[in-house]
Amino acid sequence: MGDSCQLPKVIVIGAGGVGIIGALSLCYKGLSNVSLAIRSDYEIVQKKGYKISSCDYGQFESWKPNHVYRTVEDASQSGQFFDYIVVATKNIPDGPAHSRVPKVIQPLVESNHALSEGRQTNVLLIQNGIDIEKEIWNAFDRKKYHLNVLSGIQLIGSTKVAPGVIDHVGKDQLQVGAFESENEDAVKAAKRFVELYHNEGKNYAEFDASVRYSRWKKLLYNAAINTTTSLVNLDVPRCLEFGVDRKSTEENVFRPAMREIVAIATTENIVLDESLVTFFVEITRHIMFKPSMCVDHEKGQLMELEVILGNPLKIARENGVQTPVLSMLYYLLVMVQGHLREKNGLLKFDESKAELVETK
Amino acid sequence: MGDSCQLPKVIVIGAGGVGIIGALSLCYKGLSNVSLAIRSDYEIVQKKGYKISSCDYGQFESWKPNHVYRTVEDASQSGQFFDYIVVATKNIPDGPAHSRVPKVIQPLVESNHALSEGRQTNVLLIQNGIDIEKEIWNAFDRKKYHLNVLSGIQLIGSTKVAPGVIDHVGKDQLQVGAFESENEDAVKAAKRFVELYHNEGKNYAEFDASVRYSRWKKLLYNAAINTTTSLVNLDVPRCLEFGVDRKSTEENVFRPAMREIVAIATTENIVLDESLVTFFVEITRHIMFKPSMCVDHEKGQLMELEVILGNPLKIARENGVQTPVLSMLYYLLVMVQGHLREKNGLLKFDESKAELVETK
Repeated sequence: MGDSCQLPKVIVIGAGGVGIIGALSLCYKGLSNVSLAIRSDYEIVQKKGYKISSCDYGQFESWKPNHVYRTVEDASQSGQFFDYIVVATKNIPDGPAHSRVPKVIQPLVESNHALSEGRQTNVLLIQNGIDIEKEIWNAFDRKKYHLNVLSGIQLIGSTKVAPGVIDHVGKDQLQVGAFESENEDAVKAAKRFVELYHNEGKNYAEFDASVRYSRWKKLLYNAAINTTTSLVNLDVPRCLEFGVDRKSTEENVFRPAMREIVAIATTENIVLDESLVTFFVEITRHIMFKPSMCVDHEKGQLMELEVILGNPLKIARENGVQTPVLSMLYYLLVMVQGHLREKNGLLKFDESKAELVETK
Repeated sequence: MGDSCQLPKVIVIGAGGVGIIGALSLCYKGLSNVSLAIRSDYEIVQKKGYKISSCDYGQFESWKPNHVYRTVEDASQSGQFFDYIVVATKNIPDGPAHSRVPKVIQPLVESNHALSEGRQTNVLLIQNGIDIEKEIWNAFDRKKYHLNVLSGIQLIGSTKVAPGVIDHVGKDQLQVGAFESENEDAVKAAKRFVELYHNEGKNYAEFDASVRYSRWKKLLYNAAINTTTSLVNLDVPRCLEFGVDRKSTEENVFRPAMREIVAIATTENIVLDESLVTFFVEITRHIMFKPSMCVDHEKGQLMELEVILGNPLKIARENGVQTPVLSMLYYLLVMVQGHLREKNGLLKFDESKAELVETK
């Protein structure tokens, strides 16, 4: 395809705060043809477009990308080849089967393959956690599908506050790299994506040469702090201030948990400098911030527990690293996730028998 | 005093589910003169008495003990000498100053002392936790006040469901002993209380010759299971069933936490048999039960965190016992307690500074 338009085609899946600002950034640059798979807000967006208030790009009363699709399936039947499939959903392997990433992207991977065998399909995961690429690698024959999986690590403050309404308050910072750092095609695709995405003076976007390092680094915060806030249902400053003598949260939870991440990363020859531990303790000490897992818990939504904590602990077990603090956080959060799974209809608990009767 | 009536006088402080059934048990037996300090429900109880549905004693439409007082201060000005001061409140040393046990009983200890120097005052703590007697010992000169502190460990299912309305569904089982097992007067007073309290065929009450053992034993459940349920806000069966492979809660949280209690108790020469760990894992596995700390957390009430977990951990520190699991539970629950303290006006958190500004 690409006859009518020489621009590379990008489809963004996940029309929340992250995905919509992502699509906007790409459109703003104007170097790609941008589609968005929308799901729940499709009707309203089709009619009226998005109302966006963005700290990077200003006000939009009725914004639309080049194409909107109701579903990924619809997009896969459009006859379009998508050079980049950008996944901006949460990554929850223990969520509903239909929402798991390989399942979500499958129609597009297949339609790309059918439309233009041999052309490269780049899947960019703008998602938290470690080892998230492996699920994709396991699901698809990368050679057959000419598939590159790219890593996107993003810092952004952007929320869908109502159907079709986006409030973007924290500057978009995106790092993109190849999960296979030695794969030249993948590296090239990652660098190209940065060109499509970066708007000088607006957002930040840069190529990430060491994806795994960056992910372990971000896990310092997420595995230790994001998890804890979710368990106690408190913003970060309250967690810190409510500790014994205003110290125990930092000294007995956050720092030891992060040091366990440092130890696990070390067994992969990834060196996380000790100063990063302090950096991440301090980064939200004075910001009234509730991390994503805390917000999800509050909203009754499933948490990204497995990619943030389950996967690092698997690596720890394989590599013989002791993780008393992270393991406790995990085993406690597993119960919370169970409750969220129950609330979301993914498991059934029979109170008359006091037993789990069904798990999807 | 005691002229008008040769029966020993008992005053029960704490007119919740525990205190009211306690007063009822004493009245039912008829061997003591029973007073109750009521606080919030005073007007309604004064007028209409308690409406009680009790699994042990049946239905009461309008029950009253021998005396009701609005406050402990009122009771202390009644001119009565109370042989037994039964404390059936929660024990929360980090709660409001006026609710701390030494403060609560002080007027009665003083009035007893003024009324009849040399006569024995017995304070019976029907409360959870370890080392709760020390707060009383530190607050009062035991010799001067002729004070014995007695231990009450109770199993009961009894709830105040509305002002003046009690629903008692789980049989009352009370063990009473002397914190000083070598103090003959105290032991005698404990045995005497059992006689005043035990109603054959109705409730269970027995003398407890090894108070400290019994308290460590009960802590197995409370320090490991009560705490965990409160942190994740789930009943016990859900905690167990929602673990990884339905096993991790038992294997990685409950049992290791209990083994740490066993280890701490060992340093006090108290031997808790390993079989007790299994006993307490099983005891509520199939009962849809939410332990007290979980209920308190849900209701926005302060939890008995310090007497259940803080005090055992102090002993562990003094005696050099490693407690990775219990410590994590503690440091996490301290944050939750901080939030409860904030909700109850005991501390102030300034969101504009993201800092604690005041602690009472």
